[in-house]
Amino acid sequence: MKYIYSFKEGNKDMRELLGGKGANLCEMTNLGLPVPRGFVVSTEACINYYKSDKIISKKVLNELDKAIANLEIETGKRFGDKLNPLLVSVRSGARISMPGMMDTILNLGLNDEIVRELSKTIDERFVYDCYRRFISMYSDVVMNFDKDEFERILDEFKSERHIKLDIELTTDDLKKLVFLFKAKYHTLAGTPFPNEPKEQLKEAIMAVFRSWNNERAKYYRKMNNIPDDWGTAVNIQEMVYGNLNNNSGTGVLFSRNPATGENKLYGEYLMNAQGEDIVAGTRTPKSIENLEKEIPNIYKDLYSIAKKLEKYYKDMQDMEFTIESGKLYILQTRNGKRTGKAAIKIAIDMIKEKTITKEEAISRITSNDIEGMLHPTFNSDDLKNKTKIASGIAASPGAGSGKVYFNAEDVIKAYDEGERDIILVRLETSAEDIEGMNKSKAVVTVRGGMTSHAAVVARTMGTPCVSGCEILKIDEKNKVILYENGLVKEGDYISVDGTNGNVYLGKVPTSSENTSSEFEEFMKYVSEFSKIQVRANADNEKDAKKALSLGATGIGLCRTEHMFFEEERIFNFRKMILASKVEERKEVLDKILPYQIEDFIKLFEVMNGLPVTIRLLDPPLHEFLPKDENEIYKLALDLNISKQSIKSRIEELKEFNPMMGHRGVRLGITFPEIVQMQAKAIFKAKEEVESKGIKTHLEIMVPLVGTEKELTYIKDIINNTYKEISNTKEHNYKIGTMIEVPRAALISDSLAKDAEFISFGTNDLTQMTYGFSRDDAGKFLDDYYDKGIMDFNPFETLDIKGVGSLIKDAILKAKKVNKNIEIGICGEQGADEDSINFLSKIGIDYVSCSPYRIPVAKLACAKATIDK
Amino acid sequence: MKYIYSFKEGNKDMRELLGGKGANLCEMTNLGLPVPRGFVVSTEACINYYKSDKIISKKVLNELDKAIANLEIETGKRFGDKLNPLLVSVRSGARISMPGMMDTILNLGLNDEIVRELSKTIDERFVYDCYRRFISMYSDVVMNFDKDEFERILDEFKSERHIKLDIELTTDDLKKLVFLFKAKYHTLAGTPFPNEPKEQLKEAIMAVFRSWNNERAKYYRKMNNIPDDWGTAVNIQEMVYGNLNNNSGTGVLFSRNPATGENKLYGEYLMNAQGEDIVAGTRTPKSIENLEKEIPNIYKDLYSIAKKLEKYYKDMQDMEFTIESGKLYILQTRNGKRTGKAAIKIAIDMIKEKTITKEEAISRITSNDIEGMLHPTFNSDDLKNKTKIASGIAASPGAGSGKVYFNAEDVIKAYDEGERDIILVRLETSAEDIEGMNKSKAVVTVRGGMTSHAAVVARTMGTPCVSGCEILKIDEKNKVILYENGLVKEGDYISVDGTNGNVYLGKVPTSSENTSSEFEEFMKYVSEFSKIQVRANADNEKDAKKALSLGATGIGLCRTEHMFFEEERIFNFRKMILASKVEERKEVLDKILPYQIEDFIKLFEVMNGLPVTIRLLDPPLHEFLPKDENEIYKLALDLNISKQSIKSRIEELKEFNPMMGHRGVRLGITFPEIVQMQAKAIFKAKEEVESKGIKTHLEIMVPLVGTEKELTYIKDIINNTYKEISNTKEHNYKIGTMIEVPRAALISDSLAKDAEFISFGTNDLTQMTYGFSRDDAGKFLDDYYDKGIMDFNPFETLDIKGVGSLIKDAILKAKKVNKNIEIGICGEQGADEDSINFLSKIGIDYVSCSPYRIPVAKLACAKATIDK
Repeated sequence: MKYIYSFKEGNKDMRELLGGKGANLCEMTNLGLPVPRGFVVSTEACINYYKSDKIISKKVLNELDKAIANLEIETGKRFGDKLNPLLVSVRSGARISMPGMMDTILNLGLNDEIVRELSKTIDERFVYDCYRRFISMYSDVVMNFDKDEFERILDEFKSERHIKLDIELTTDDLKKLVFLFKAKYHTLAGTPFPNEPKEQLKEAIMAVFRSWNNERAKYYRKMNNIPDDWGTAVNIQEMVYGNLNNNSGTGVLFSRNPATGENKLYGEYLMNAQGEDIVAGTRTPKSIENLEKEIPNIYKDLYSIAKKLEKYYKDMQDMEFTIESGKLYILQTRNGKRTGKAAIKIAIDMIKEKTITKEEAISRITSNDIEGMLHPTFNSDDLKNKTKIASGIAASPGAGSGKVYFNAEDVIKAYDEGERDIILVRLETSAEDIEGMNKSKAVVTVRGGMTSHAAVVARTMGTPCVSGCEILKIDEKNKVILYENGLVKEGDYISVDGTNGNVYLGKVPTSSENTSSEFEEFMKYVSEFSKIQVRANADNEKDAKKALSLGATGIGLCRTEHMFFEEERIFNFRKMILASKVEERKEVLDKILPYQIEDFIKLFEVMNGLPVTIRLLDPPLHEFLPKDENEIYKLALDLNISKQSIKSRIEELKEFNPMMGHRGVRLGITFPEIVQMQAKAIFKAKEEVESKGIKTHLEIMVPLVGTEKELTYIKDIINNTYKEISNTKEHNYKIGTMIEVPRAALISDSLAKDAEFISFGTNDLTQMTYGFSRDDAGKFLDDYYDKGIMDFNPFETLDIKGVGSLIKDAILKAKKVNKNIEIGICGEQGADEDSINFLSKIGIDYVSCSPYRIPVAKLACAKATIDK
Repeated sequence: MKYIYSFKEGNKDMRELLGGKGANLCEMTNLGLPVPRGFVVSTEACINYYKSDKIISKKVLNELDKAIANLEIETGKRFGDKLNPLLVSVRSGARISMPGMMDTILNLGLNDEIVRELSKTIDERFVYDCYRRFISMYSDVVMNFDKDEFERILDEFKSERHIKLDIELTTDDLKKLVFLFKAKYHTLAGTPFPNEPKEQLKEAIMAVFRSWNNERAKYYRKMNNIPDDWGTAVNIQEMVYGNLNNNSGTGVLFSRNPATGENKLYGEYLMNAQGEDIVAGTRTPKSIENLEKEIPNIYKDLYSIAKKLEKYYKDMQDMEFTIESGKLYILQTRNGKRTGKAAIKIAIDMIKEKTITKEEAISRITSNDIEGMLHPTFNSDDLKNKTKIASGIAASPGAGSGKVYFNAEDVIKAYDEGERDIILVRLETSAEDIEGMNKSKAVVTVRGGMTSHAAVVARTMGTPCVSGCEILKIDEKNKVILYENGLVKEGDYISVDGTNGNVYLGKVPTSSENTSSEFEEFMKYVSEFSKIQVRANADNEKDAKKALSLGATGIGLCRTEHMFFEEERIFNFRKMILASKVEERKEVLDKILPYQIEDFIKLFEVMNGLPVTIRLLDPPLHEFLPKDENEIYKLALDLNISKQSIKSRIEELKEFNPMMGHRGVRLGITFPEIVQMQAKAIFKAKEEVESKGIKTHLEIMVPLVGTEKELTYIKDIINNTYKEISNTKEHNYKIGTMIEVPRAALISDSLAKDAEFISFGTNDLTQMTYGFSRDDAGKFLDDYYDKGIMDFNPFETLDIKGVGSLIKDAILKAKKVNKNIEIGICGEQGADEDSINFLSKIGIDYVSCSPYRIPVAKLACAKATIDK
């Protein structure tokens, strides 16, 4: 095995071995671009380093010697040569770019002697400035000394000298600083600063290897689902200096505008500066358009290089360049990051330019790009001075800013008084909060994860939501949030970014939704490729319309319980729960019936012949009962029974593990009259709309089934209800089952005898297969990610090995018995790309997700088709 | 298909088709015993009846006509013949005896005309008595009229006539009663009482079919796991009369003593009486020994018939006989029910008599027989006048009587004051109640099922327990139980039968344990056949010793958490939970360490080389924290922190679904220092006992694993701890995993790479596969049984179709990767016969159950071997 490759030996397809940056440097070199010369230490060397207990192997060291020798020949410079020294940069580069996560060392190869000699031919101040930077970088990266130790020396020195900016330091100052830095190094290390460039390089390479496993890199990988065992490559490259003189400079360049996608060079540069000066913000960089006037030939070169690279990589490029004494060097190029809007515009433009195909365009657009188009966002500049008070789970995308309220009642009151900038903050939400959530710009909860009540409902509404902010303490009584360093009172502004999970103090402006003509065009292409149907989770007219407008092909999950929460209904529903006799219960159900009919009529009308999948009542009854003393009192008055009897009913309904308790089909077995009422409402609605000439495609879905007889029992009730109220004998609806408990998957062949369709409820199935309560797992899963025990969240991405294999086998078994059975998925993973890719291969017909995720799901389905 | 069989056409092997009683009547007929002639309508006819919407098919009716014609020829009597009428009994008879559950009609074939004619030749009073009995039976069974309607007529009539006993009714009285009964029938039915015997018979047969599905029969089947679709046969048999004259009589007879097993006829009889007179208790029957003196030749015949039948059926027989005018008839024989003690004595005796083999003996003994030997019981006579206040779940077998206390503290106080008759009654128990449970004669809880805390702990202790008495309301504050008609205060006596789940008011004496020399002998035979190891769930020296004495081959589950509940330990354990820093936690763990070492030393010493399987800490931490205000106050004082901070920690640890929350291996991932402490304690203990020359066979078990990395993470901690403290490099212990979450079963091949053994935790696996919280499912499962949706309790008997298939596939996969992997089961189903039979076929090596269930489990294992 070979561990080190010169830039001439690699190419862009060697990303796995050489990292993204390394592969690109090789490619550019071979394209004849002006790239500073160098070589790459491969990711295999890094993996090898970790396997050998963090020792760099002899084989790698031997190759390193040779690579240095070659580089010396190429450049005509030599390591340690006083007159013509080779100076290099040492940079990390993983398969996938992890910007800023790992370490870099510049100016490596300097020592006292070389510095003294160089000063004779180059600006002395410049040389010593490089040297002091090198010493502090080396101390930080290689030796892991506290940066502050060196910063403090610099600060004290400047304050003694009464100067503010580094630029004001004289050559003598820098010489003294070098002396002080080296002394500090000696104190901390116990040995003098290394003089030998090869030794410096070896240590630097190992330091970069180690930086693969620093905390921020591990966190970044966790957040981006990058495996821990990939390792990083290390790029060693001849130094070029943008700060050598006024004829030198440095800049960054995008081949198109990364914010809007406009096809025009975009970037900035500084003359007589190093890359870090642009980042530091002490000097204001100039727009790249200026360069055209300032140094037209360089601009022309840059332009043609940018276009060449773009054609070559078939994507918008993000480049770094340096001009050293009038000569242009390209330091790096990579596919540029961009906003969702830009991504889509660029993709559409490139299709038109015939640079890429539709398939390529679709493969390249990410779900984040789409999300960015559909939801308001914060501008990162506006966040610069904001205090982040929590970082929770990004439960529903989009950004919102507003005044804090602590319960739905207060939200509604504020809303009624005209307030629109409202953020609802709660320990956790429950069904009673729905109206308040709907009137809020964003929702924050302390507890719960991706599939908590708040998260699920917020996504359906398109309301931004951050859940699981365990770091916040909420005092609901006094209406105060306690964060680490202070408190937020009712009415104070906070800003919530549901796309990344951050919560900030104060007000931040949001962009509005970004859909554009390019977005429409792009989604048209997506629809062409999407072979799997994408249905929506929608419970009402509004959601159904939204879903249709975003391209839904039907409703895959209508949660009927959501229909019970309006004031008049919940009263009757509660009355039903409290009823002690069947007759009493039936009486109240009769009152609820007309509402349900109305609900279903509206859904059928909106969907006009597209599938409408209605799930029977699912959640445990106690979710419907009032929780606070006042509400209980009101209900007791209304019902004319004692508060105590309501309380004891609430107590009776309490469960140890409600997720595995009396819910789903189990309610239908205990209270068949509820199923009867729901079936009646569905069929009456169907009859009504059909009499107006509107078509219906009805599927009734039984939740939480685990045994065959549960399904047949409910099926009989539904069919008998149909017989009772229908004029025709024709049976033009389907009855199907959800598969949410593992047992249902295990006996799918038995269920398939009676079910006309199966819908996998992957949220519950994941919960029960792992034995992870989704409301509680947040507390320990962080440790799982930190310790590398899990590298993905199974509530976001389907666990293919476990839950996936269960689903796969269940589909196989079910199709053996009933080959035409329709197979769907409804669950949070129904819009996830990897999950859909897997599911498309095992034969599902549709996915169902919340309306705002439809475009993302369609994209994933199109990608799955292309992948096949 | 043939639906009706004459007694000559059937035999004892046709039990499925003809029912137990019918098959035996055929067999006895063919053995030449004096059986009243008749025929059997098969179970198939019953199934057919239900399938045809409760209509009796033409085919069956045709066969019925022929069967009647044949019976008329055989008996020389004719249906409806005035001079020589055929009168028959109509009796149910399922495959398995369901005594008293279904209906019977006697004297069928009578009508006004026949009665008038018969009265001329036979005692007129007798004839009218038969007739009025027939009319009321027919009204009850066929027409389903309220029995009281006829009872009331009789009572009013007797009260008018100032008589008390039926026997005092004159012939004229009976004639008038017949008139009144028939009039009442006419009023209720709207038609006159049917005169036509064939019509009577057809209706009676259908009525018996229907009685298969009456409430008590359905309940009996549910309790005895008898499938609902078997149906019942109907036996039609010539009437014989024990009450015809003083030369007639009737009786019941066991071929051996059903209480003790003694080999001597046992039974009772009454002259001039019908079977129901013996049951009614108005006349006191005589012991069968009397018959020897009273009618020696009949006794001799009975004796030889009993012995003949016993030889023939190879089992103790329970017979009914009638003497009609000096002629003996055998009405029925069946294998007799017996106490556990008798069952074992009879089996042992029959082996010695060479009537049966050891295999047959083992197959015949039930787990109930064994349970009856191991636990105190109530004598049914002592319960006759007791008020039953609840019927809950028979959670831990045995009977106990004592004074009610409502919390562990009060129990301990009473115990310390010398009270020994103590019953602990609680809403539900938790870890803090263990000492109180141990000091109680029995435990009753309002909530929870077979695998609730109370149930599991009580079974381990051998303490009788009834759980899930939802009908009782407990007012813990005022220390009162409210039952339907009254209340029980602290200190009042109640009696608890954990074998059948009943709770009675007042004091009832209990028999002590019944183990006998025959029991010891029987268990020796069982051990010979048991191929699967039977290990015990035992956490301490006492349980381990008990387990050994009952034949355990090791410890299959030592729940280390039980070791933390003693006062000193729980204090430190709580301190550990409340610790906010790792160092603090480690410090407290160091204090717990010596106790754990001591615990393990004792276990190793007792088991002396037999397997000891130690499970790492499993339950959610909040189970260890105090619940009541006082305890919290005490802890706060002890720890010198605020009550509020303890409360908020308790609040923090609260979970929505603790069963799927932060427990098992998840604790070990979050707090590796706990695993370190436990591993250290285990290895130190091992070293210590080995230094004394005692052998150890150690298996360390990681609970609730769902991913491979969880197991390897913990395994590394254990192995590293071993390396740190062990002198030898030799690694003579095993590390294995539990499989409790479905995902673990699905990825068993991955786990088998790292696990040296697998133990299926079937309680949790059942919970999560069904999505049934065992603490909550009781609330809805009753409806499931009532509606026939489930016909067994998956927490008692393994769900072979679902959970079983998951286990089977998991074992196959695991063995593919690691063919020597040891496979065990620990869970309540580990002592269940059907479950063990299944498990033995899919390759398990051991089961583990609570000490008192070891003999039952061994029996099941022996049966599984014999079944193979």
